[in-house]
Order: sequence, then C-alpha cells, then structure tokens
Amino acid sequence: MFSSRGWACRVFCANALVRAGLNVRVIDKRPVKVAAGQADGIQPRTIEVLQSYGLADKVLSQAAFMIMAAFYNPGPNGIECIGRVPDVTAPTARYPYEVTLHQGAIEGIFLDSMKKEGLEVERPIIPVSLQISEDPKALADPHAYPVKVVLKHLDWESGEDTETVRAKFVVGADGAHSWVRKTLGISMDGEQTDFVWGVIDITPSEKTDFPDTRNKSAIHSVNGSCMIIPREGDKIRLYIQLSNKDAVDPETGRVNLHRYDPKRLLDVAKDTFKPFTMDAALDKVEWWTIYQIGQRVASRFTTNERVFIAGDACHTHSPKAGQGMNASMNDTHNLAWKLTHVLRGWADISLLKTYEFERRKYAQDLISFDKTFSALFSEKIGDDSKGHGPTHEEFIGAFQDYGNFSSGVGVHYAPSQIIEPTYQAAASNLIIGQRLLPHVLVRAADAREVNIQDLAPADTRFKLFVFPGEHTQTVAAYLDNSQRFFYKRRDAFDVITILQGTKSTVNYLGVPLVLRSHWTKVLLDDTDITGSRGGRIHERYGIDRFAGALVVVRPDGYVGTVAPLDKLATLDTYFSGFMLSD
Amino acid sequence: MFSSRGWACRVFCANALVRAGLNVRVIDKRPVKVAAGQADGIQPRTIEVLQSYGLADKVLSQAAFMIMAAFYNPGPNGIECIGRVPDVTAPTARYPYEVTLHQGAIEGIFLDSMKKEGLEVERPIIPVSLQISEDPKALADPHAYPVKVVLKHLDWESGEDTETVRAKFVVGADGAHSWVRKTLGISMDGEQTDFVWGVIDITPSEKTDFPDTRNKSAIHSVNGSCMIIPREGDKIRLYIQLSNKDAVDPETGRVNLHRYDPKRLLDVAKDTFKPFTMDAALDKVEWWTIYQIGQRVASRFTTNERVFIAGDACHTHSPKAGQGMNASMNDTHNLAWKLTHVLRGWADISLLKTYEFERRKYAQDLISFDKTFSALFSEKIGDDSKGHGPTHEEFIGAFQDYGNFSSGVGVHYAPSQIIEPTYQAAASNLIIGQRLLPHVLVRAADAREVNIQDLAPADTRFKLFVFPGEHTQTVAAYLDNSQRFFYKRRDAFDVITILQGTKSTVNYLGVPLVLRSHWTKVLLDDTDITGSRGGRIHERYGIDRFAGALVVVRPDGYVGTVAPLDKLATLDTYFSGFMLSD
Repeated sequence: MFSSRGWACRVFCANALVRAGLNVRVIDKRPVKVAAGQADGIQPRTIEVLQSYGLADKVLSQAAFMIMAAFYNPGPNGIECIGRVPDVTAPTARYPYEVTLHQGAIEGIFLDSMKKEGLEVERPIIPVSLQISEDPKALADPHAYPVKVVLKHLDWESGEDTETVRAKFVVGADGAHSWVRKTLGISMDGEQTDFVWGVIDITPSEKTDFPDTRNKSAIHSVNGSCMIIPREGDKIRLYIQLSNKDAVDPETGRVNLHRYDPKRLLDVAKDTFKPFTMDAALDKVEWWTIYQIGQRVASRFTTNERVFIAGDACHTHSPKAGQGMNASMNDTHNLAWKLTHVLRGWADISLLKTYEFERRKYAQDLISFDKTFSALFSEKIGDDSKGHGPTHEEFIGAFQDYGNFSSGVGVHYAPSQIIEPTYQAAASNLIIGQRLLPHVLVRAADAREVNIQDLAPADTRFKLFVFPGEHTQTVAAYLDNSQRFFYKRRDAFDVITILQGTKSTVNYLGVPLVLRSHWTKVLLDDTDITGSRGGRIHERYGIDRFAGALVVVRPDGYVGTVAPLDKLATLDTYFSGFMLSD
Repeated sequence: MFSSRGWACRVFCANALVRAGLNVRVIDKRPVKVAAGQADGIQPRTIEVLQSYGLADKVLSQAAFMIMAAFYNPGPNGIECIGRVPDVTAPTARYPYEVTLHQGAIEGIFLDSMKKEGLEVERPIIPVSLQISEDPKALADPHAYPVKVVLKHLDWESGEDTETVRAKFVVGADGAHSWVRKTLGISMDGEQTDFVWGVIDITPSEKTDFPDTRNKSAIHSVNGSCMIIPREGDKIRLYIQLSNKDAVDPETGRVNLHRYDPKRLLDVAKDTFKPFTMDAALDKVEWWTIYQIGQRVASRFTTNERVFIAGDACHTHSPKAGQGMNASMNDTHNLAWKLTHVLRGWADISLLKTYEFERRKYAQDLISFDKTFSALFSEKIGDDSKGHGPTHEEFIGAFQDYGNFSSGVGVHYAPSQIIEPTYQAAASNLIIGQRLLPHVLVRAADAREVNIQDLAPADTRFKLFVFPGEHTQTVAAYLDNSQRFFYKRRDAFDVITILQGTKSTVNYLGVPLVLRSHWTKVLLDDTDITGSRGGRIHERYGIDRFAGALVVVRPDGYVGTVAPLDKLATLDTYFSGFMLSD
C-alpha cells in the first residue's frame, strides 16, 4: 500500500496487517514522516477502535479533548452565546468526547507499533505501474500473486532504481488524489460546493476574551460563520467562512491561495467574533490553508478484490465535521481482518466483497451527512422562520441528530454473509451489524472491572460471548462437539463466558473447561467494587437471564450474529457462509 | 544515599530529588539492578503518591490487582469459605484495591524516570566512613557541606578505589541492616516474635481447584494458617505458617533455612488447603524463603538533620500486612520536598525536624498495627469464644478496622509548624494533617474532568485551593498584596480556583487574573459530562458555599492548613513559621 497523502489510512492498515503476522510492505513517497502538521479530530468510535489495538491511551494522553460544544448567534451588539451542549450526543459512546491530535503524533504512534513487529515504511518510493492478472484461476486462488507493481525508488543514487513487486493484494491508501484509483480507472461521483473556507491554527493571546476557545464552538455572525476546534496545549484551530468572490479565481473556478495570508484570515475571524476579542501572534501560525468543499465517493472500492482503495482515495468531504481521518482508519479496520482471514486460509476469498459493500454504503451516508451539515453551517442563521437559512433550533437539532452518526457509534452494516440478523430478538438491544455496545463486567476470578469491548480486541479472532442462562451444559456440549465449526477452526475463536452471580459468592471453577480457557475469560454480570459501574448487562443487551444467548462479535468489533441457545446450529450456517473448515 | 537493601526507598527518594532539580548522587552496592525478584504489595495511598509523580499508570498497567479478600476457616471436611469482602475497606480511597508488582519492574520505572533527569545509580559502591561536622555554624548553614562520606568503588580495577564526598545532606536508605543507622549509633527498639513463616512464589497448575487464587485469601486451618497474594500473570505468593520447632534452630534461636525447601513448604500448604487441591510445578518456583517476624522502630531517624535514615532502616515488621515498600516510599516522599525547600533557600533548616516527628510516629503506629494483625493471623481461629484465639468475627473485624490504616489513606500527621488545624471548621470534612481527599472536579474552560489530587502533583510547590464563595475580590486582593507571603515567594505556590456554576453557563474569564494563571487552573464544582462523577465538593469537604475557604496542601499532598476567607492573614503566620521570604 502506498503514497504520500492518506497517511492515516495507510499506517493504520499496515499496523493491523503486520500485527496479524502477515508479510507486508508499505511505501511512501515522502522522504520522512510528518513532524507536526495539522491536527486531526478523532471521534468516539475511532477511540474505541484505537483501544482495540491497545493504542487509545497513547493518543488520549497527548490529545486535546472536546467535551462541550458552544453556539453563538448574532445579537444586537455582535455575537452572543446561545448555549452549550455536550459535544457528543451519542448516549452509548464509551468515550463521550472528541479529541484532536496533530498528524505527527498519531502517525508516530502507529509507526512505533509497527516497528515492534519489525515493519518500517519504505521511502521515498512511488509506484509507476500496476497490473492485475486476468487469469480467473489466479484471481480466485488466495495463494497466487496476481498483482504486479513497479516501484521507483526516488533516492537510489546509482544503478537500477525500479523494482518489480508481485503481490497477492494491494491497498491504495494514497489520499484524495489517489494514483491507485486513477490507475484502476475508478471515477469519483459527486460535486464541488460553492462554500469556501479558510483554516488557521493559532494560539490565542492574553487579550482574547472569547470564553469558549477550549470548547468546540460554532459561531454564526452577520459577518460569516466560524468554528473553533481546540488543539493540544493552548492552540486552537479556526475554520473561517470566506466570501466566494474573494477566494475563488473567476477564471479557473478554483480557490486561490495567493489571495489570502494568515493576517487576512485572522482579520476575517476578528470581525466574526465581535464584540469579543480574538487575538493571536501571527508569527506563531503553524499551518493555514483555504479550501472549497467537495463531496464525492468513488464509484467502486476495488478491482477484482485484489487491489483496493481506502480512505481519502474513496471519499472526500468537508473537514469541519471531523470525519476524514476517522472514515479512513475505519475503512482499513474493516478490510484488514478480512485480508488476514483469506491469507491464512481461514476464509473464502469472497469475504473480501463485503469490504466495498460495507464501506461504500458508509461513505455515501457520510457524504449525505456532510452535505446537510456543511450547508447548515455555511448558510446564515435566520433568527426567525422567514426562510433566511436555518434557524438556530434547526442547527442545534441537526448537530444533535447527527451525533450518533458523526460519533461513529451509529455505523450499521447491512445484512450480508457476515451480518446475520435472524435471531436479533435473542439480544434485542444489541443491534446486529453495529459495534459491540460497551458495558462494564467484573472478572469472576479477581473481581476486576473490564469493559466488554476490551474482551474483543482487534486480534483477528471472532469472539463468542456466551451468556449461558440456565443452559451451560447445552453450550458446552455444542462447543465441545468435534462436528461443529468452532471445533474445527478453534484458532479463529475466543470464548468468553458471562455468568450471573456476584463477586462475593461465585465459584467460576464450576464452569466447564471449554467455556474457560483461562481464568480471565469468565466474567460476571455484576457491578465493580465501588458499585458505581457495570451490572445488569443482560438487561442492557436485552438477553433473557434464563434463556441466555450466544453473541458473535467480528474481529473488527461489530456484532455479526446472535444465536439463541436452542438454535446453536445456526452458527454453523453462519460461519460456513464465509469460513473454510480445513 | 546508598545501599543494597532499601532499593524502593532509595530510588523513590533519588527520583523525587532529581526531579526537583537538585544535585544528587545515589550509590548502590549491587552491581546491577534486580531483574525480577519478589513481588511487593502497593497500597491505595501509595498509588495516589505514585500518581502525584506521574508514575501510577506505569505501575498499574503491569500489576496484579487485589480487589476482594476471601476468608476460609476450618470446617468438618477441611477448610471452607466463610465469605469474601472488599480487600480495601477505606471508603475514601481513590484506588480501592491493592496491587502487586515485582521489584524489578518497580525499580525500573523509577530508574527510567530518574534517567530522564540525567541521574543514574552509581554501582557497585559501598560507604566506608561517615562523619558529621560538630561546628554549630556549619550545621545551621544550609549552604555548608558538613557531612564527609568515604566511598569505596568495588569494581575499580586499578589505582585509588576510594573517594571522599562532602555533602550537604545524606539519606541512608539502606535497608533493615542499615550501615548508616549503625554508623550513627541509632538503636532499634522492639522485639522478635515467635511466629515463623515461609513464603513461596508459585504458578498453580490446572489441578488446583481452590477458587480464590486471584483474590487475597486468608486461610485458617487445623494444620496452620496461610495467605495468598495474587501476583502478575498467573503467579501467586503463598505465606505459610510453620511450626517453630521445625523452623527454628534450638541452639541459635534463629530460623534455619536449611531445614526447608520449596517442596517441603508446598507440602505444608497442601495440608492447609485440604479438601482443596493446591498444586504447582516446583521447577518453576522463582523465589522462596522463611522468616521470623521482628517488629522494631529506630530510636531516632536523623543525626542533626544532616544525615537521615529512611525505609527499612527505620522500621521492620511482618511482610504479610503489605506495608514494607509503602512505608519506605512514603518516608522519602515526606522528606524529599523538605530537603528541596531547604536547599532552595525557601524554608528554614528547622523544617527538617518535622521528618522524624511525622514519620517516626507513623512507624510506631505501623508496628502497633502489625503486632495486632500478625498475632491474629498467626494464632488459631477458635470457632467459639472459649479463649482459644480470635474468633472469625474478631479476625474480619480487625481486617476491616485496620483498613483505613493499612490502606495508607488514614495517615494523620499531628500539629506542628507545618500542620496548623486552628480553622478546621472552615472545611470540616477535609481533615488537616491527612492527605487531600480525592474528588472529581470539572475544568471550567473545557469541561474535562480532573481529580483534585491531580491538581496537587509532587512538583515541590504548595497548592492554594481557593473556594471563593462570595468573596472572590477579598481573596484576589489578598494574593495580589505585595506585603503578603504568597507575593514574595510566588514560585513556591500554585493557585487553583474552584468555582460554583455549571459547565453549560460558566464564564471563567470573569475570575481575577491572580486566581487563574492558566486556563487549566479554574475548576468547577460540577459533575463530569456523563453526570456520574464529581459534583458537590463543597459538601464533601464541608466548605460553606457562601463563606468559602482557602485550603493549603503541602507538596506531599497533605492538607497543611485551612483559612477562612475573613482570616486570610493566618496564612502569613503559617508560612512564616517555616518559610523564608527572601
């Protein structure tokens, strides 16, 4: 996988694949990694995903947090605060906030993780040609190498500077101007909007008396709109709406960077913030740009499930909704385990079709969300309902309605060979196709609290969460049956058992061995030692305490299916739909 | 500071001093640090202290947790479980559990931290002589070097292998057999008990069916007593009561290691655990020993406040109560900031007298606690009240009564020049002389939750927590007055202001500048974004919302004094009792 842009998607993918023990090469045309760079927003679901790779703590310890969102509207003397609401309005979010962290830090965390597995980015290298075999037999054989890529090493000082690589699969995580996408002849569907925005990273000076520089702030003024995104330390990012006639070159119709500089951007912002003072030293501006919002989705995400595109190569949208890096990382989070299963011989190669199926639908929803949100934000607020743009209530309403989507926790994959919702009723509140709902359990052996999501790390295995109800022996007999799927492909599964009972009285050694491969794998539906967290997961998930249920969670943390304990054979049907038993 | 034993006390002290920017040398007679070694228990208050140095996360991420304590008593067929209770019974503990981690890991965390400040342990080196000047003028002058120590470098291959060091202060953190203590001629007061115990670290095999290997377990059987302390991974430590006639050499009266080996220790344990099976592979035993409990306190902790002893050099007691490393670290936590203030010229040298005053009293209380607990644990449980040892209720009662003490959170320093309780009523629930009660606040600027303890890190500064009530201008005027103590020695203080109000409505920029040196220093008495943590700190601390209060927290996290806002001049009296204003 390659390229300069799309770094987030690329390092995320490379890290996931090398941790799975695969033979990966990752190339980049940049001679070095970014040292600092612009900040990227990280959404609640992305933090959960980072946690599943053991990387959330590293990100959170360096990041700025966005917990509240403040709204300002025009008043008689300039803007005035209308109110503050929680920035994240998704009630099931495990991390009920967004964070921001600069690219250099995020990329560094992934590069460190990859390095522990022995993988480093090769740079500076660019791809110069890519060919996919047309032999149907080779394309269907996971052991074949049907992709030929010619690479050019930019810094080779002498001799042959090109290299031919034969690959089983290639992922083009190469940004909005993706070379891979163009080479595959994949079109981008969508359009450019008329909205032009400036972005500038500043450190407010002591003169600044605007009270919401450390909250996400959405400001509508008679002089245009502005958004504040707090950054690490004392820095903030300003998104500043610009007048099209100033910012767009009338001849080309494209934004004209030369018409702006940091001082002019900040001057526009200063007008917007009146009567508040927004002041910053211009010599400390780390980064600024202006851009026009484009909203496009690639017409397909793969050619023959042998070469894929991911991240900005697949979708472009406005940065203000803070989706960019999140959508990118989640693309490759979705793809990495599927590639791993196919390469290990665990899954049929057709599993890879679900990547485009799941992620293109998501990208289309994202663009649709972005259109609504960007339009609302770029238009003037009317303080009545006379049709002069959205009312304040409409804006906050949209902000909150979309909370579930923009937080990432509402992502819902449609039924497919890996999403089987027939028995949804057996866990009525745990939606099949959505990510595993976070909830605190207590370990039976040592009473330590554990979030159930941390029992489903991104370790490439399917997790079988057994809520045995009164049917412990039924489940144990099923899992111990050598005719069953689980038995034949045991490496691909982890079994976690969730008992009813309390930490004061349980004896977890009474659970059959097939349900407790280690003492850490038996949990209790009980509160933590302080009584303030966890408990009642059966009710939270809608699982009957007598009937129980078996919940299958995919390696990426999404609920794949749920089986009632008197219908366990449905699991053989589910797994044989995409897994290979030998 | 030096020596082989007492490593915990030594690295803790060295780290605290070098982080304060002092010129420190630390010597050790061991050629290398311990690689693994025995496990040490870490109590709730010690975790808080580690957190104040930014080291708690590193310890907790590697440690085993003890959350529940299980009790077993003799029954008709061998031992049976009487019940489980929370291991930590101190309701104010921020970390309501104990953890264990092996010495190598703990020492490594401190060595890494010191190394970042440029300090490494010099080894192998031993002290061979120590002399303190008798010149009263030199002893009273913090800039003088009245201590002369001769060191011997054990690995110098040629030439002169001794070195003479002149020091302002010396800390003998050199373990139970302290060379410094003996050289100063300090006696140990106390006695040896008759109780002999064996200790062995094992990994229970699959045959083991005792259900509480991952809890702290106190077992009384007709064959003797035993205690389980879970360790990292799957390991556990067993403390096993031994028969004196087997374990003690009748001629010397001392324990005789040669009479035991791991197999014999485990055999004793196996008898104790019946009818349960306790089984382990003997070839994997990392560590074992047998010991007789001694309970002693040094008659003094210093000579002329120029040479100090700390940790095991000052107090020895039984390991089962898990106090050893905790008492040691907290000794030097108490001493380090005092040395720092004197060396910086912030405090009068007499401040150092409070070290022995505070820590020797603590050590005496510890021994008293240890005597009661060890006796209870070493005696047979009588299942009636006929005087055959403690009843089960007495044992659990003692376990829970002492929870507050053994957790470390109950430590209460008596009135002195640095503990001034006159105005206790102004914060009636925040006990002057105890550590700052943990409580969650919300940052006014960005609504992020912060535990108030994390606003009082071990950065050598006194913290002034201002609860302004309705008297904001009064406090601001006091702190801005150039005649006041705070003004003259501003580097020694950090000011944190705790407002009433909510994250939805507050404008923290309305607070006078002297009360907000940075946006992170203004907090709210409000709940976190989920509504589940924090809020009502005024009630928690017993501070009137109208009258307010100013709480002074020492650099080691203990409440030094509290001032009503109409009695702020009391702070000048307090600080001038030990601080120098120029």
